[in-house]
Amino acid sequence: MNSSYAQKYGLPKYISISDYLFHRLNQLNIHTIFGLSGEFSMPLLDKLYNIPNLRWAGNSNELNAAYAADGYSRLKGLGCLITTFGVGELSAINGVAGSYAEHVGILHIVGMPPTSAQTKQLLLHHTLGNGDFTVFHRIASDVACYTTLIVDSELCADEVDKCIRKAWIEQRPVYMGMPVNQVNLPIESARLNTPLDLQLPKNDPDVEKEVISRILSFMYKSQNPAIIVDACTSRQNLIEESKELCSRLKFPVFVTPMGKGTVNETIPQFGGVFTGSISAPEVREVVDFADFIIVIGCMLSEFSTSTFHFQYKTKNCALLYSTSVKLKNATYPDLSIKLLLQKLLASLDESKLSYRPNEQPSMMVPRPYPAGNVLLRQEWVWNEISHWFQPGDIIITETGASAFGVNQTRFPVNTLGISQALWGSVGYTMGACLGAEFAVQEIKKDKFPVTKHRVILFMGDGAFQLTVQELSTIVKWGLTPYIFVMNNQGYSVDRFLHHRSDASYYDIQPWNYLGLLRVFGCTNYETKKIITVGEFRSMIDDPEFAINDKIRMIEIMLPPRDVPQVLLDRWVVEKEQSKQIQEENENSSALDTPTPEFRPLLKKIKLDTDLISPPYYQGPP
Amino acid sequence: MNSSYAQKYGLPKYISISDYLFHRLNQLNIHTIFGLSGEFSMPLLDKLYNIPNLRWAGNSNELNAAYAADGYSRLKGLGCLITTFGVGELSAINGVAGSYAEHVGILHIVGMPPTSAQTKQLLLHHTLGNGDFTVFHRIASDVACYTTLIVDSELCADEVDKCIRKAWIEQRPVYMGMPVNQVNLPIESARLNTPLDLQLPKNDPDVEKEVISRILSFMYKSQNPAIIVDACTSRQNLIEESKELCSRLKFPVFVTPMGKGTVNETIPQFGGVFTGSISAPEVREVVDFADFIIVIGCMLSEFSTSTFHFQYKTKNCALLYSTSVKLKNATYPDLSIKLLLQKLLASLDESKLSYRPNEQPSMMVPRPYPAGNVLLRQEWVWNEISHWFQPGDIIITETGASAFGVNQTRFPVNTLGISQALWGSVGYTMGACLGAEFAVQEIKKDKFPVTKHRVILFMGDGAFQLTVQELSTIVKWGLTPYIFVMNNQGYSVDRFLHHRSDASYYDIQPWNYLGLLRVFGCTNYETKKIITVGEFRSMIDDPEFAINDKIRMIEIMLPPRDVPQVLLDRWVVEKEQSKQIQEENENSSALDTPTPEFRPLLKKIKLDTDLISPPYYQGPP
Repeated sequence: MNSSYAQKYGLPKYISISDYLFHRLNQLNIHTIFGLSGEFSMPLLDKLYNIPNLRWAGNSNELNAAYAADGYSRLKGLGCLITTFGVGELSAINGVAGSYAEHVGILHIVGMPPTSAQTKQLLLHHTLGNGDFTVFHRIASDVACYTTLIVDSELCADEVDKCIRKAWIEQRPVYMGMPVNQVNLPIESARLNTPLDLQLPKNDPDVEKEVISRILSFMYKSQNPAIIVDACTSRQNLIEESKELCSRLKFPVFVTPMGKGTVNETIPQFGGVFTGSISAPEVREVVDFADFIIVIGCMLSEFSTSTFHFQYKTKNCALLYSTSVKLKNATYPDLSIKLLLQKLLASLDESKLSYRPNEQPSMMVPRPYPAGNVLLRQEWVWNEISHWFQPGDIIITETGASAFGVNQTRFPVNTLGISQALWGSVGYTMGACLGAEFAVQEIKKDKFPVTKHRVILFMGDGAFQLTVQELSTIVKWGLTPYIFVMNNQGYSVDRFLHHRSDASYYDIQPWNYLGLLRVFGCTNYETKKIITVGEFRSMIDDPEFAINDKIRMIEIMLPPRDVPQVLLDRWVVEKEQSKQIQEENENSSALDTPTPEFRPLLKKIKLDTDLISPPYYQGPP
Repeated sequence: MNSSYAQKYGLPKYISISDYLFHRLNQLNIHTIFGLSGEFSMPLLDKLYNIPNLRWAGNSNELNAAYAADGYSRLKGLGCLITTFGVGELSAINGVAGSYAEHVGILHIVGMPPTSAQTKQLLLHHTLGNGDFTVFHRIASDVACYTTLIVDSELCADEVDKCIRKAWIEQRPVYMGMPVNQVNLPIESARLNTPLDLQLPKNDPDVEKEVISRILSFMYKSQNPAIIVDACTSRQNLIEESKELCSRLKFPVFVTPMGKGTVNETIPQFGGVFTGSISAPEVREVVDFADFIIVIGCMLSEFSTSTFHFQYKTKNCALLYSTSVKLKNATYPDLSIKLLLQKLLASLDESKLSYRPNEQPSMMVPRPYPAGNVLLRQEWVWNEISHWFQPGDIIITETGASAFGVNQTRFPVNTLGISQALWGSVGYTMGACLGAEFAVQEIKKDKFPVTKHRVILFMGDGAFQLTVQELSTIVKWGLTPYIFVMNNQGYSVDRFLHHRSDASYYDIQPWNYLGLLRVFGCTNYETKKIITVGEFRSMIDDPEFAINDKIRMIEIMLPPRDVPQVLLDRWVVEKEQSKQIQEENENSSALDTPTPEFRPLLKKIKLDTDLISPPYYQGPP
């Protein structure tokens, strides 16, 4: 009111729609824009330089840029990605689809040919040559919660506001096409003096009341309850509400792989990660036998990968999705969960709870002490690294062995985990690491409870190769993550899980990973190649190493078919089942039996004694 | 007939649909398959090892794999790409869209979840989490001439044949979904004894007769004719017919940027490259004033980029597209051009031609001799390299300065040019280079007129960074291309063309490009950093250097805002026009005038004297 935004930034009466857009992002503390420049996006990008504190990341390719915007958004609530028409946006689409699947707020702006060219169907560069200018917009609409083109000079500022609001509140990608001839549409700068309305829509009081009373009744009655914290807890900014609920209910608390890092894992009732069929026995004992489960920030109640089934056994579930609740079999749509949780906390009377915390489930991370000259194994590394994590860490794990390994670690307070458990796009985390580093730089200046954040990336060597060039963007900006390259010489989880473990499609070209920083022009860095337990131990015992004052890249040498214990356990069970099935089907067909089930791969694993007897790694090449 | 295919390969009575598919590819001499393995594609990939002479390229990421399949197809007529559901196929889609835009035959096979999971809408890994399994298929249908899923056990072999036939004949991508539970559907191997029907559909004799007679009448009457050879000449395998037509008509012959390399440039009437508004004056003089133009293998008759308009001025055009003819204003659909051209050649009577070749246009590549210690410039490098090319070379040029530069070179006989002039996806050529190298290895054993092929890639440093990891796949296979990294420190064509030449979005992180081969594990290679005219000259004078017995990577140091002469000339013209427009509009608006035209960028170039006075490059860093 006193000093308006337009005054503060000395804006003229009219500014362009592009300036308006970037000022709106500035108002939400979005200070980094991701993407690559192109013929149709450069006039828009020029405006970016008019806004203070706004930087253009300048990524190495569009897919990586989309991954980076996603990683940034997971910390800041919104990521902005700018690409050019056709080639640029299609290169990014797999990253955007990942944000859609995993509920991450992205504003994807596409620089487009001028409206006149579109109207006349001119045959332009970056088109399919058939005069169809709508095809990419159409494609984008399958992985966006809203799409629009900036064409209407009257309504364009409303459209910009709507796009940002939707991406922010719904936590999904929004697609905005910006034709090059529209970048200068004039907007009154005074509009910026009214902040964007980011209020969640009020809940219907009747519905809210019913839902809360039913949930409370379940809570009060339950003898064997469990709380599960899932991914949308961070996306919908429910971390505080969730924390209060856990501490007041004192129910056993678990986290899903996608939710890892959104719950305080140091509270006594924290029981670990619930990964469905491959959960630790002590986790399954509580969750599978619970008579009531409340899932906060639920993303998916069921989910299957080639390695595990994820589902809740009890019918007595309260699933709190982003914008709806499912209670037993009843669905209550159009509910803002944040508001609902706040009301629920206000009504909660702990004295009515039947549950008495007796035997606490507790997640213990073992810390065995093998001899220093022993070669590294996945199982030991993941347990050990757990003790090196610090409060405030951002821990990023790639699809594959790392995503499983991290589930056996225990996070300190105020850490955040980033992984892409549902979409599972290999290579995602290099971009996400860049995005997280930018976010952390900005958060340090802003608000978070702790100001010390380290960004720690765990990535297999196979995944690393898909997106390696984004390491160069990390170098360009002088960012200082830890990059652990878990080198097990190829796609090892696949090699382990699929029956044909000697196929060449698991192999990758062996790189000198640690040589890349120098090739990419980095001058201030540390690299380490860690082969033995002793080397690993002295690395994490070194207080210097714990300080993220430079980029540190660590190559962890692991045996080619080694995997975290949880996968090994699962494998043994599946092998037994597979033997039975094989015996049953023995003479059924001359061809391999077509596999009617959706997890056919595991069934076919052949016994390979080599697989479980260490060591495989024969020392440095 | 005598020895059947199934006998020759010792096939059992029934083979799986996957084996069938790969044997069909083998019958077309397709011996390399591109892609990355994934959970849903591994059971299919396993079958690949049953087929002799079939190799799995194992690319570094899916976009690069699509680029590689495209480059391979441009030499062999079909490229096969295998990716996994969701994440894999979406990562590849920009490459597939390029193949669609530029008429390149691709068979894209996607390993899918089992049909049962799709029917039950299970929430799987690599889905959007909404139970929609059709979304990626739907997206693919926008950039494919045909799409299908292998679900019908009766018809699946017909479907496989249809997919291959369509990709081969129509020279566009075909999308084939292969659910994991279908890979073993049994097929009688005897089907393989009947070769695939790849015959072009016969033309309607009446239509054909009318078209030929009208074209001949134009040809006979014309006083100032021109032949333009365009991209579909190679895609539709019209090179021989085109060659005969040129030599019998003796009309001046030009090639489009997309057709470069499909015409014999050593014939006397070859006049150079027609690039529309930025063609050399001697080219425009003939083409713009022609009274009849025949375009062989026409892809687009009009086309616009930020740097040039491409169109034919005369109305008397015979445009021979892949499957239709446009003659003046009349369109004749559903014509196979290859058959039409063969009939036309049979009817052609040269004695009736009015045109008498008098003053031959002729493309001369100048060869000035600057002093050895002068720093390199784009203009000189492109002229000079022209004299180093050999018959049989495959010359690949990246979108940007290289694509313009190559137009001023003159190709020896039997060379082929690869560039992506319409789609223009930056980074494409690293993948295409890999694909072309595989193709060349196979062609050497097969059929081409010359057996010596060198693959020569020209790529700017900016583009190089987008797809760098595919260099590792080139290393993995011990392939031996020449890779010229044209290092002008960023996105220089954009920097030159766009008005804001100092914007950071043109900058890229400086890499030690020549250090990459070693980091990627290459042992047999040569690298050179070339800064002066003298160094360049002694490189191309060295007979050892001309032999492609190892991978050779050459970094050519060029000034940051240097561009080939053709762009510089254009810039001077545009600058003059822009001055006039500026004077006309001087007081029209407080804001920058919205640009209603589709080439707004050039109009805004500000005079920068620095831009045209050499040298910029200050020596090695």
